[in-house]
Amino acid sequence: MKELKEMVWKSNLDLMRSGLVVLTWGNVSGFDPERHLMVIKPSGVDYELMKPRDMVVVDMEGKTVEGKLRPSSDTPTHLELYRRLGGLGGIVHTHSRYAVSWAQAGKDIPAMGTTHADHFYGSIPCTRKLTQEEVEKDYELNTGRVIVDRFRDLDPRAVPGVIVNDHGPFAWGKDPEDAVKNAIVLEEVAAMAFNTVLLGAGDPVEQYLLDKHYFRKHGKDAYYGQNED
Amino acid sequence: MKELKEMVWKSNLDLMRSGLVVLTWGNVSGFDPERHLMVIKPSGVDYELMKPRDMVVVDMEGKTVEGKLRPSSDTPTHLELYRRLGGLGGIVHTHSRYAVSWAQAGKDIPAMGTTHADHFYGSIPCTRKLTQEEVEKDYELNTGRVIVDRFRDLDPRAVPGVIVNDHGPFAWGKDPEDAVKNAIVLEEVAAMAFNTVLLGAGDPVEQYLLDKHYFRKHGKDAYYGQNED
Amino acid sequence: MKELKEMVWKSNLDLMRSGLVVLTWGNVSGFDPERHLMVIKPSGVDYELMKPRDMVVVDMEGKTVEGKLRPSSDTPTHLELYRRLGGLGGIVHTHSRYAVSWAQAGKDIPAMGTTHADHFYGSIPCTRKLTQEEVEKDYELNTGRVIVDRFRDLDPRAVPGVIVNDHGPFAWGKDPEDAVKNAIVLEEVAAMAFNTVLLGAGDPVEQYLLDKHYFRKHGKDAYYGQNED
Amino acid sequence: MKELKEMVWKSNLDLMRSGLVVLTWGNVSGFDPERHLMVIKPSGVDYELMKPRDMVVVDMEGKTVEGKLRPSSDTPTHLELYRRLGGLGGIVHTHSRYAVSWAQAGKDIPAMGTTHADHFYGSIPCTRKLTQEEVEKDYELNTGRVIVDRFRDLDPRAVPGVIVNDHGPFAWGKDPEDAVKNAIVLEEVAAMAFNTVLLGAGDPVEQYLLDKHYFRKHGKDAYYGQNED
Repeated sequence: MKELKEMVWKSNLDLMRSGLVVLTWGNVSGFDPERHLMVIKPSGVDYELMKPRDMVVVDMEGKTVEGKLRPSSDTPTHLELYRRLGGLGGIVHTHSRYAVSWAQAGKDIPAMGTTHADHFYGSIPCTRKLTQEEVEKDYELNTGRVIVDRFRDLDPRAVPGVIVNDHGPFAWGKDPEDAVKNAIVLEEVAAMAFNTVLLGAGDPVEQYLLDKHYFRKHGKDAYYGQNED
Repeated sequence: MKELKEMVWKSNLDLMRSGLVVLTWGNVSGFDPERHLMVIKPSGVDYELMKPRDMVVVDMEGKTVEGKLRPSSDTPTHLELYRRLGGLGGIVHTHSRYAVSWAQAGKDIPAMGTTHADHFYGSIPCTRKLTQEEVEKDYELNTGRVIVDRFRDLDPRAVPGVIVNDHGPFAWGKDPEDAVKNAIVLEEVAAMAFNTVLLGAGDPVEQYLLDKHYFRKHGKDAYYGQNED
Repeated sequence: MKELKEMVWKSNLDLMRSGLVVLTWGNVSGFDPERHLMVIKPSGVDYELMKPRDMVVVDMEGKTVEGKLRPSSDTPTHLELYRRLGGLGGIVHTHSRYAVSWAQAGKDIPAMGTTHADHFYGSIPCTRKLTQEEVEKDYELNTGRVIVDRFRDLDPRAVPGVIVNDHGPFAWGKDPEDAVKNAIVLEEVAAMAFNTVLLGAGDPVEQYLLDKHYFRKHGKDAYYGQNED
Repeated sequence: MKELKEMVWKSNLDLMRSGLVVLTWGNVSGFDPERHLMVIKPSGVDYELMKPRDMVVVDMEGKTVEGKLRPSSDTPTHLELYRRLGGLGGIVHTHSRYAVSWAQAGKDIPAMGTTHADHFYGSIPCTRKLTQEEVEKDYELNTGRVIVDRFRDLDPRAVPGVIVNDHGPFAWGKDPEDAVKNAIVLEEVAAMAFNTVLLGAGDPVEQYLLDKHYFRKHGKDAYYGQNED
């Protein structure tokens, strides 16, 4: 687990340096699919003071396996996503400004151009609101459940992020580093879509352009970058 | 008082580094409840040149007890809040951009999501305008009075900040450091609420979600962070 | 002149560091009222490469008295303001984003709160558009003239800045450093007024609040800061 | 080619430092008109790790002449512009926020003030959308073609940039450094025009002011800067 703890720790620092995080409003986790363990940032600790050894290792039921600090209060949300979305190696939660603004408006972030299409195959979905019952009991677990529910007909590998209604974004990827990258993209396209709407133009990108850009960078026919095929 | 002067000095520097302050538009004070003394930044002095010994100590009537420089011109406002809101250990005043924009619009900053609810239990209230009489005589004291008046039915510990109509924000906390944190939160949620309104969606968050998030981090059942219970 | 050249050079660097300047879009000048000479930044030179000795000294007719480089192409505008507004010791021109946006909209920047009132006694005026004749011949001089014309009934010491229609802001002060400060204020209040208008609230501040804030910091009854009375 | 590779490498770093680039969303190329060779950034490589020797040299048909890495996937777009617009020495592509917002809105960026007019002689045009056929086959080449088509009646030296519909900006210049400068200008005037439109004022600048500003800095009668005539 030492390597994954290092990676989760580094990704939490990268997230802070990205400018997406105010105070301690963000967390990154990583998943070890062989041992079925999750590594996550401790709750409410200053980014600058954290060490790799402060990362908390929990099992799939949220029981702490390694680490002295309390895991992030969002732990049950992360666990639900690893358990049920499939194939995720890292998850990031932030309160980045534009993504939160769309979440507070309760609207999907529409795919309005190729910047979006390069990374998200279609709108970044906004979940439904949680009910009073879902909020009052097992709130963090239910946050994961409304995300899973929202992805019933969506492929989480093609749409690596979501905004939770009235709350904010979760993004994910094949590992913690990739999840941080997708959180950065999510915030940037949220800002671009915001501006575009304010300019009075709201048409999503054409399906064929969405296909082109997404599959140019993903899947078996990808031809972008040095390392992807 | 040496320790409190150090803390007030450091918090003023932290405030400047937070990006909330243009030129010298901001000040932090701290309160010693046992000796009934307030420590505050001197007026119109460059943040970079200030030393801990430049902090001014005043009594509850505003008389300087220690320090050679004139205290911040907002001193009577701070004093009124310490005298009448109860339980405050630090106060911050800024002219941060989005908070001022709401103050100039004369509107409460609505609680539109969980980022807000995590720190402010409900709208961040905007005071009424001061009358001509209140402005012309004892202006800074009267600024404190309209804030106190606005909190007649509000708990200042649950809503640790306010925007003064046509002016700007004051935030507070259990100590100067905590007050700076709340000033940062106030500005960030002001920006998020601004964006949300521009997206054409203006519903405040549900009461049950507000309750959940606020009490998750505050009060006797809190379970967020390492040090709070 | 050595001292004034140092100060103009330093103020040009301060202006760049303030974040108001993109590329080389800005210039600061200073005025020596005894020798009737102006010192100004050279035209189109990188801020980082400039030395104090590169500053250009010109007389009131714009003839170079000292310096090997061509003075800023805005020299005739600066000279007209020193000649006819009276009492100016420094002038700054920028293309800062929000001030330009108001200039492009052709609207005065309204005084909507105390941040504005602390530094500008009333709206920051927008000039009329220049006519074709004024643009084609002696353009820079005529830019100065429309500013002077706009100040026919305004006191340039109480309103230390202007926006030129379709162009951008000029700010001034008692010396180059003070002018830079006013350029920073002008941009910040332009941004705040922009946000306030977008929030759907457009009332300027009351006259009595404007009076209070302006005269709290300026004139014989000022009581703000350590050095002003 | 060593010198051009150094310049292209340095311009790619300058572009990153300009704040216009998120992750690796940008590329700069340079053109050697005598040898008919283009130097361009490799695809998907971290800016910080790139060395001058990583720059890829391709001929006018896109065949790699020097370099081990895959050239930017936008190579066919750059080549088409060098082949058919004439006189270009450097090209920059970014996904800068405001330029992309206008591209997503499918609108030309109007020339609303002198900041724009100093660098772009008229609106920064937005291309038509590509058809499904153009997207599915030879997409990057066709991106170049719609740009060339959009410039049928425009002078690329007078309007050194374009926004591709639903995609983002391309800017160019006499060399890579000049192209980076124009990309920075393009983003800044896109932001200013955005703000101006939101202030409810949408009139483009008068033709005579556009003429004045553009020709003050360009062409045989230019009198701005130390090095241009």
